[in-house]
Amino acid sequence: MTTTSFPPPDKAALEHGAALTPRFDANGLIAAVATHAGTGEILMLAWMNAEALDLTLKTGEAHYFSRSRNALWKKGETSGQVQIVRELRVDCDQDAVWIKVDPQGDGGACHTGARSCFYRVWEDGRLVERP
Amino acid sequence: MTTTSFPPPDKAALEHGAALTPRFDANGLIAAVATHAGTGEILMLAWMNAEALDLTLKTGEAHYFSRSRNALWKKGETSGQVQIVRELRVDCDQDAVWIKVDPQGDGGACHTGARSCFYRVWEDGRLVERP
Repeated sequence: MTTTSFPPPDKAALEHGAALTPRFDANGLIAAVATHAGTGEILMLAWMNAEALDLTLKTGEAHYFSRSRNALWKKGETSGQVQIVRELRVDCDQDAVWIKVDPQGDGGACHTGARSCFYRVWEDGRLVERP
Repeated sequence: MTTTSFPPPDKAALEHGAALTPRFDANGLIAAVATHAGTGEILMLAWMNAEALDLTLKTGEAHYFSRSRNALWKKGETSGQVQIVRELRVDCDQDAVWIKVDPQGDGGACHTGARSCFYRVWEDGRLVERP
């Protein structure tokens, strides 16, 4: 299955076509947002390269590309927080994907132990932890 | 109000501190996800530079940085789809923000006319429009 091809035929195809033609950035990455398939909350925002996106589509489990480690990364490989993908969406100009996932293991997604990586809210000029 | 400073003191402060110390990328940008404050659905994923983030915090209306136009951009300036920010969250390593917004104007967020930019779902090897 070839999921990625360049360049997209034209703007109409990019925005309304049936072909997945992700527009990876100069580093070969696309932003990926994962929400909890049950609750809808945003769990994390990470990056996928073409291989990570292909593996995510083929295996049904979320794969990312770690910018800090410069390596492909299967979510949950060490933490057990595997993410089973229930739905994958792409945005209008195909430079971002949204996956709805069921987190396995302890049900969390963040290396800090929080359920979601977005556990801090900006309030009155400071960040407050509110998981 | 200085909302941004570099570098963050240390990993503990980055992940659990009260200071907003966003880690902009090499292009000076941070990913920003906007969800509908009412329904929770993801409306769009865009980018903010330091100025856009500051303006978002100061005005309570979403500002972004357009990578294609290389310019600061107040959401809704021409479309009327101003986004009133109800909550702003930052993730564990402060390289992404999540804003919950009330879209003004026609209530949409996408230049295609769709409510959300993520109107296409990957199904059986193709993208299907399902707003």
